[in-house]
Amino acid sequence: MNFKIRAATKEDCKEISRMILELAVFEKMPDQVKISHEELERDGFCQNPFFECLVAEVPEENKSKEGFTVVGYALYFYTYSTWKGRSVYLEDLYVMPEFRGNGIGKGLLSKVAEVGKKKQCVRLQLSVLDWNTPARDFYAAKGALDLTDSEGWHFIRFDNQNLDNLANEAPKD
Amino acid sequence: MNFKIRAATKEDCKEISRMILELAVFEKMPDQVKISHEELERDGFCQNPFFECLVAEVPEENKSKEGFTVVGYALYFYTYSTWKGRSVYLEDLYVMPEFRGNGIGKGLLSKVAEVGKKKQCVRLQLSVLDWNTPARDFYAAKGALDLTDSEGWHFIRFDNQNLDNLANEAPKD
Repeated sequence: MNFKIRAATKEDCKEISRMILELAVFEKMPDQVKISHEELERDGFCQNPFFECLVAEVPEENKSKEGFTVVGYALYFYTYSTWKGRSVYLEDLYVMPEFRGNGIGKGLLSKVAEVGKKKQCVRLQLSVLDWNTPARDFYAAKGALDLTDSEGWHFIRFDNQNLDNLANEAPKD
Repeated sequence: MNFKIRAATKEDCKEISRMILELAVFEKMPDQVKISHEELERDGFCQNPFFECLVAEVPEENKSKEGFTVVGYALYFYTYSTWKGRSVYLEDLYVMPEFRGNGIGKGLLSKVAEVGKKKQCVRLQLSVLDWNTPARDFYAAKGALDLTDSEGWHFIRFDNQNLDNLANEAPKD
């Protein structure tokens, strides 16, 4: 199947928003999605954007059952390692189920790696859920390291009241 | 002990570089540090910086055995959740051993939370090594969630040859 990968524009945010929800349904946490397409437009298409995004598009004749031609996306941003320097972090990689097996996911992932290399990034990082065996196998087959297994890194998060409490205790200038 | 937390300047990069190495020694991977203070200056103090940094400073009369007055740092950057929006990620939090127990680490952490809240971030995230019990306890006591334990998130990384291979396989435009 023909597909094209291109940088997302502000006009794609509704489609990206739709796919963010589809991915959350797959991840079994659809009620966690609080982001609207307006917020994506604001945060991704401003002067210092919080993220960048690629979309995968198929020709009109291959559109989905529901009529969609934007059928996948990769949303990423730049991070920094104090050991190695510039890195790129892939927050979401998604291809609509009926379009899987055509190399679209692989194409999106490779393109993010290419974009990162152009910015002199030395790492591409991401997170997967332990029960998501297809994703873990997909990345492992391409040579990725699982740093939670090999080095014991754990993810830690402050949010909601805990984050407010922390911020309120900040020393005054 | 008196201390002050302030935004790092380009002139602090040598001190930050020294402490990055001290932290890597503690983490038992000192040979992993490839970043020089020149790279920190380039990447942190440019138009679209890859990171921001706070430093903790003590008065001259409390300087360290070796004569340092910059005794801690917190290096962070902005990330993005497609479920919740803007987030801040704390890459490194470090206080020199002889200055611990004075609330400096707590002060740096709270200040990052405050900076994040001002940018409308709804999460503060970070990673810890599983054997680093003091750090894990420190964060847990402040209400942080361990998402690797509770939801099963694993860290995945491509680097070196694997990253080059991926980038080289990117679909051509």
